[in-house]
Formats: sequence, C-alpha cells, structure tokens
Amino acid sequence: MAAAQYEPRVGDLGHNRAEAVRWSQSAMEQGARLVVLPELASSGYVFDDEAEAQRTAESPADGPTVGALRQLCARHDAYVIAGINEADGGCRHNSAVVVGPEGLMATYRKLHLYYNEKSWFEPGADLPIVDLPFGRVGMVICFDLWFPEPARALALAGAELIAVPTNWVASFKRTVWDDRGYCQGDYVAMATAAQNGAFMVCADRIGEERGMRFIGASIIVGADGWPVAGPASKDAEELLIADIDLDDAQAARARTPRNNLHTDRRPEAYRVSEVPVSPVRA
Amino acid sequence: MAAAQYEPRVGDLGHNRAEAVRWSQSAMEQGARLVVLPELASSGYVFDDEAEAQRTAESPADGPTVGALRQLCARHDAYVIAGINEADGGCRHNSAVVVGPEGLMATYRKLHLYYNEKSWFEPGADLPIVDLPFGRVGMVICFDLWFPEPARALALAGAELIAVPTNWVASFKRTVWDDRGYCQGDYVAMATAAQNGAFMVCADRIGEERGMRFIGASIIVGADGWPVAGPASKDAEELLIADIDLDDAQAARARTPRNNLHTDRRPEAYRVSEVPVSPVRA
Repeated sequence: MAAAQYEPRVGDLGHNRAEAVRWSQSAMEQGARLVVLPELASSGYVFDDEAEAQRTAESPADGPTVGALRQLCARHDAYVIAGINEADGGCRHNSAVVVGPEGLMATYRKLHLYYNEKSWFEPGADLPIVDLPFGRVGMVICFDLWFPEPARALALAGAELIAVPTNWVASFKRTVWDDRGYCQGDYVAMATAAQNGAFMVCADRIGEERGMRFIGASIIVGADGWPVAGPASKDAEELLIADIDLDDAQAARARTPRNNLHTDRRPEAYRVSEVPVSPVRA
Repeated sequence: MAAAQYEPRVGDLGHNRAEAVRWSQSAMEQGARLVVLPELASSGYVFDDEAEAQRTAESPADGPTVGALRQLCARHDAYVIAGINEADGGCRHNSAVVVGPEGLMATYRKLHLYYNEKSWFEPGADLPIVDLPFGRVGMVICFDLWFPEPARALALAGAELIAVPTNWVASFKRTVWDDRGYCQGDYVAMATAAQNGAFMVCADRIGEERGMRFIGASIIVGADGWPVAGPASKDAEELLIADIDLDDAQAARARTPRNNLHTDRRPEAYRVSEVPVSPVRA
C-alpha cells in the first residue's frame, strides 16, 4: 500500500494529472497494489470563484484523470484511490474515486465539507465499500475523520482498509512531540484504526495555495492503531510504502483472547440516562 | 480539574481508601473542583479469585469509599469521580461513582469489560450524565475508550467533560515518540476530545499487580483535542491539575466559522453502499 504526498497546483489540470500518474507509477514500480493520492488531486483546493471550481471539475466516469489512471492500473494490475473535483451536472462533489485495471470502480462523495468547501461542493449521501483483490476497502476524506461515524460504519460493514485522501490545513496543527511531528489528523487516524481494527492510508498534500498552507504528515496506520509508515515530513514530497496484509485486520480486532472490538459492542447500552440534579443519596 | 495517578493495592481496602482521600484532598487543597481517580481505586485490579473479588466489593450508596469521599467533598465543596468495585447483590460491577458534598450523585457501570474482568463483573446498561455546578459530566472507563459510541452518545447529550478512571495495561503500549511517552489510551482520548468537542480527564494507575503492569500516562485533554496536562510519567505518582472552563467545549465544537462538530453530522448518510465487484464503467 502506498500514500503519495506531493503538491497539486490549483487550476493546473495538466500538471495535476501528470503528477497523479507519476506518483502512482512510481509506487506501482516499487510494488504497490494500492496507491492513495491526496484530496482534490485533480484540481487543487483553494478556488478563486465558482468559475474556477467548475472549470476544474471532471466526470469520474469518463474524465481525463480517471482515464489516465486506468491505463496505468491496467499496466500494473494495481489500483488508485484519488481525490478529484467531481462534475455532476450543475453541481460538484469533493470525491474520491477507486480506479482499477478495468476503469472506475466506485466514487465516494465527501460527507462533511470543511469551511469554504461548502461554497463549491454538494456533500455525498452514502459510504461506498469495494472488494479489491487484496481486501475490502472504504474511503473517507479529510474532515470526515473528525466524525467517528463514517469509519465505524465502514469497518462494521467489513472494511479492512480505509483510504483517506486529505488536504490537512494548518488548523489541524502539528505537535512539538518530535522532529517529524504528528498532526491531529495523524492521531485521529491512529485512534480510528485502534477502535475499528482497520488499516488507514492517509495521503496528504504539501505546499501553499492563496495563503492556505497544507501540512503533510501523511501516514499509513496498522489495524492495531500504530503507524507502519510515516508520518511524512511537513513540507517535502514523500512516497510512503508499507507491506501490509489486510487479513491482519481481523486479528487486530481480537484485542485479547476474550475481547473483540466489533462483537464486544453494546448498541443497546449506548443511551444516556439523565441523573436528577439532587443527589441519589444524601 | 485534577487527575490523580498513584498505586492502589489489590485487596487492601483501608490503604486504598486512605489513598483515595489523600490524593483527592491534595488536589482540592490546590483548588480542584473535580478530582478523577483511577479505575477500581477502592479494590485494586488483579483479583486472585471470586472470593477476593467479592470481599473487596462495596455498595456505592453507603459503602466506606463513597462515605469517606463525601466528607471530603462537603468540606471543600468539590466533587470526586472514583473507580470502585461495586457490590450489587450477588454480582459486581466495575463502576465509577460521582461523589459530591451531599453524597453519591451517580454510578456508571463499565460497558465494555476487558479480558478477565469478564470473570468478575457484570457490564452496565447505560451512560449516566450529571450536571455539576461547573458543567455537564459523563464517564467512561478504560477499554470503553476503544469504542467510539459511548463518548459520542455522552457528548451529543451535552457532556462537556468525560471523566475516564482507567487501568491501562502494558498492551496499550507506550510509544517512543518522546521521553514522556504517549500510550494508545492518550491518543485515543485526544482523538475522542477532538471529534466530540469535549474535555477528557483520564486518571490511570501505576505499579504492578500479580504480574500485570500498569503504564501511567494519565492525561487531561482540552476540548480541542490537545493535552492541557500530562501525559504523566509511566511509573511515578503524579497529580495533574488543569484550570479549564467547561464553557469552552461549546466553542471548541465550532472548528471553523462554517463548521460545528455536532450539527455537521450526517446521520442519514452513515450507511454503506456495496459496490458490485465488476467495475461501474469499463
């Protein structure tokens, strides 16, 4: 599995497509069967206006990004999950596409739009899950991670890996824990992996667009909640690659011989009881 | 708010009660209005057999631990949340009690029992929430944190602070990130705070009982998901104190001027759609 951290350029579709192919190809030549690219890798992130948002959108079904990645996937018998600005008639979605040797397999539309994304995109309505040859895969995008429900729903539906194309911005600040630096996105992804027994592959971008800085720190997290690659640096291109077996997700859910993260759930007990303000017993 | 990290002794009820009072008093004398003590602070953790588990259990309503803490709370106009081995007729619960100046206010019974706790305890059936003078407070215990649902339910019901009496064991291993060391419990608590916009006060224990080692790393986390005190050391007694205003939880939920962690939820969209194995479009 691979996560590519690089710098798309807002509005420069040709450059972004070439970069998506270049990073995916590099990962596949090093043996990656699945490559995750950043959020909105096709278009860049900080649009100036509606016209730019619309001009940089493309169809997942027959758009140029999916088309270019499809050829690469066919050549290497591999898969790419990439963030694209998805054209959908008169509106757009902040989407992640799953592309394989035979073309587009699934499109996930981000459920939780962050800040000014609300001006450019319509949110999605569900969480696709797809069976790839090496395992069952779901997707969330960036701010979706700050909501525990999507990853939970995917894991309970059997997802062994959750791909996270992302554009973490400076408000998800990095820590001073060490020289590499974990950002909040990293440890939220680690907790999500630990709670669900699922691998997480988070591909962030770097660089700055129109005053907005992105913070890197891409990470691949094991189903036990600990990093297996990364976090990547805060400002350099980097390709994270990890040799992981998605069958290990099942084992990671058995935290002890008597515990399983999925079957130990207590849905009937997740209800709050209000305690009267006066003490139960004086 | 305070979290007391120390070493209860299994089976030594008098010692444990004295320690609970001593640490709570010390925190209150330094200004704490709420003190959180470790899981099973009344009894210790690693029971030898059913007889020991039963002998060390007590009633929350009129047991000696709650009684002793009540006097202290009355003297200082403060509150304690403590883990106790709760006697409940023929069975027991791994519980957290809220004690105030007028006595017992609420009892939470751990929903997700870890490993051999399943031999000694019956799990709880709901999540009490209590209004204290400084804010709305819920509780989870240790392994409960590995399930996102309890904290989520509490936060959506208005909890501004979640108290976490805990006994993190070595399998929740510490990292090598830095000299202080964050364990998995720390970053899961941090992610839980970041996702819910709630303060987390985690009081762990230290020491070893019958071959089981506990790992400290107690932590107080702000509603923005970043530590405000701790993590504490892995093997020393430590009292964490943080001056926090629970009203800040509301503000922390507004991650941007256009986002709120609670109202941005998309419950209708948290459903998985299966993608057929053949590609959508060749």
